[in-house]
Amino acid sequence: MYSEDLAQKAADNLKAIREKKPLIHNITNYVVMNTTANALLACGASPVMAHAAEEVEEMVSFAGALVLNIGTLTPPWIDSMIRAGKRANELNVPIVLDPVGSGATALRTESAKRIIDELNVTVVRGNASEVLSLAHEGSRTKGVDSIHSVDEASDAAVVLANELNTTLVITGEVDLVTDGIRIHLIYNGDPLMGYVTGTGCMATTMIGAFMAVDQDAVNGASTALAYYGLAGERAASKAEGPGTFQAMLFDALYGLDEKAVKEGAKIRT
Amino acid sequence: MYSEDLAQKAADNLKAIREKKPLIHNITNYVVMNTTANALLACGASPVMAHAAEEVEEMVSFAGALVLNIGTLTPPWIDSMIRAGKRANELNVPIVLDPVGSGATALRTESAKRIIDELNVTVVRGNASEVLSLAHEGSRTKGVDSIHSVDEASDAAVVLANELNTTLVITGEVDLVTDGIRIHLIYNGDPLMGYVTGTGCMATTMIGAFMAVDQDAVNGASTALAYYGLAGERAASKAEGPGTFQAMLFDALYGLDEKAVKEGAKIRT
Amino acid sequence: MYSEDLAQKAADNLKAIREKKPLIHNITNYVVMNTTANALLACGASPVMAHAAEEVEEMVSFAGALVLNIGTLTPPWIDSMIRAGKRANELNVPIVLDPVGSGATALRTESAKRIIDELNVTVVRGNASEVLSLAHEGSRTKGVDSIHSVDEASDAAVVLANELNTTLVITGEVDLVTDGIRIHLIYNGDPLMGYVTGTGCMATTMIGAFMAVDQDAVNGASTALAYYGLAGERAASKAEGPGTFQAMLFDALYGLDEKAVKEGAKIRT
Repeated sequence: MYSEDLAQKAADNLKAIREKKPLIHNITNYVVMNTTANALLACGASPVMAHAAEEVEEMVSFAGALVLNIGTLTPPWIDSMIRAGKRANELNVPIVLDPVGSGATALRTESAKRIIDELNVTVVRGNASEVLSLAHEGSRTKGVDSIHSVDEASDAAVVLANELNTTLVITGEVDLVTDGIRIHLIYNGDPLMGYVTGTGCMATTMIGAFMAVDQDAVNGASTALAYYGLAGERAASKAEGPGTFQAMLFDALYGLDEKAVKEGAKIRT
Repeated sequence: MYSEDLAQKAADNLKAIREKKPLIHNITNYVVMNTTANALLACGASPVMAHAAEEVEEMVSFAGALVLNIGTLTPPWIDSMIRAGKRANELNVPIVLDPVGSGATALRTESAKRIIDELNVTVVRGNASEVLSLAHEGSRTKGVDSIHSVDEASDAAVVLANELNTTLVITGEVDLVTDGIRIHLIYNGDPLMGYVTGTGCMATTMIGAFMAVDQDAVNGASTALAYYGLAGERAASKAEGPGTFQAMLFDALYGLDEKAVKEGAKIRT
Repeated sequence: MYSEDLAQKAADNLKAIREKKPLIHNITNYVVMNTTANALLACGASPVMAHAAEEVEEMVSFAGALVLNIGTLTPPWIDSMIRAGKRANELNVPIVLDPVGSGATALRTESAKRIIDELNVTVVRGNASEVLSLAHEGSRTKGVDSIHSVDEASDAAVVLANELNTTLVITGEVDLVTDGIRIHLIYNGDPLMGYVTGTGCMATTMIGAFMAVDQDAVNGASTALAYYGLAGERAASKAEGPGTFQAMLFDALYGLDEKAVKEGAKIRT
């Protein structure tokens, strides 16, 4: 039912992260800087948060992946994201974009679209409304404004991935990853994740860590989400609410070993 | 001894928040962005943190309340607060102000006063020295510089609420809420809250959530504080210090049901 | 083996912090603002985070120590740090610098050096590569680029402390404190600290709190690190991973009493 090959791949990728400790360069929002840094440390990667125009090109040159997240956005941050992203593209450092709030305000939507237009973005991760807000005017997906299930999102996501020439990740009760050709569905996770801020942003940065060791964007993203969702399941099984859940999520990201990931990853192709 | 009507009102307001999931727009300080977002999620509301001048008017138009908090302040943030607040006033979205550090530096005091002058602020919440620092020159409350008890603060707060034409909330061992006519005292809470940063700011944003479902500012603020203080009591009963307390506070905000709130709220009129 | 005098001094300093509750003014990075504020509260000090050029001089005038931390740096923050630091120097408020990322990018290295050049910095705390990156061109320590142990770092640190005319703190498996003459080694701590973001920054701000009650920089820094490391040991003995560890670290900072500190501090001279 679930792919054994991808479960093995998830375990292998986790092992590679712990061995190589890739630096993940985040230009991200104030709300989640602490929690995404802790998620990266817990899984075995090395986080750095740096947004100054004066240093982002230098910093990204050491990185295994660049994570761009547009929450708590102001225009100077976008300029730094573009600057870092251009250097990342030159160096073939994969870029993951989290279009937080795209579709809600013009600043967010336009900024997300600008990043996708000006950079070669490897993966975009958001919820359904954020991701589908990235469609161009006249797109076949424009006007899809009520996505209630993975099935409904799936067709639109495939079309949009081709339009944007990137891999799209729509997270929700079930997570969907598609490059416009392949589709992976990930069934790991727990509803308590919706009661902790930054759990989506942590998913994005986990994808960054896995992309640093897996050049296949669809595999990298789906194995990251399986591992992360599995940690959520483990934390939820012990937590008494969202506060203890968050602490236990970091424990689980740290404590999950390759065997547990191989046995628990639920990815369908 | 404690008001049964207001205890029922606290339970009803909590129920309404969980049903309506109001968006609470925060323009707040860097220290507490994560924790206030988590407090809002735990109680059932939807947080958004957004401060860019380019988007605050658009964002606040979706909101059930606007929370302005002047910790880690710089002047551009004040401009965004004024901009968001003017739009909030046009749309009758209630505004809650947390004058963090007012009275400590000229920037803080003047910024808090400017916000109150230029906007129609529904509720101001702070500790005694912060709130009383908002008095105009020549105010009857000016010079009240040693407030050691709710009784001492009470008279000054009533006068000041009339002067500023707003509802004032002074939190401490006992919390006081007054619009210059009515006075509510709230006896929930725990001393451990003083050992966790942002517990005051979380109180402010809880007031925002309750204001989104209760148009009566005095009732909204006092029921929010009773619920929040009750969660603090529950967390403190299990915690082994301020770190586990913080995690358990989110658990308690999430786990408290209407029955527990009705039985535990301690509001006196 | 370990100094009993310094263990007693650690206990005395902790007692003094809890009695005097010194205000510690932090101009620090976004990632750790929340956690360093919580560490200060847990140990008994009063944190304030303020970075606006308009208020830093006023704020630092109330402070027992000024903590400057260059993570998530942009140039306007450096200007505020210099401004606050000049006023701190006039008032004899001790300054602790955390040169986060110095050596990694030119912005970080140059900013850290500028702070040291323009201010009278009392203590600099970082890891070995950060601290040794502060050497001037032509320094005897320049080119020391592989420091794997305290022994290797020790000689370079003594030379550099004299060059920079400050007290240097290099934290790692064993922590080293030197003013160029005396050397203290601190053996408290736990490897789990490396899996939580901001544990180094918390060490720096703990040094700030201890400097506020101990004018001897070497003693202040080493007693702070013993107390902080001991809290880490206590937390690690109960935690199931880095998430619960972080919560329990605050519990331990709060719960450690003078007796436990006197018995557990491991400082060698």
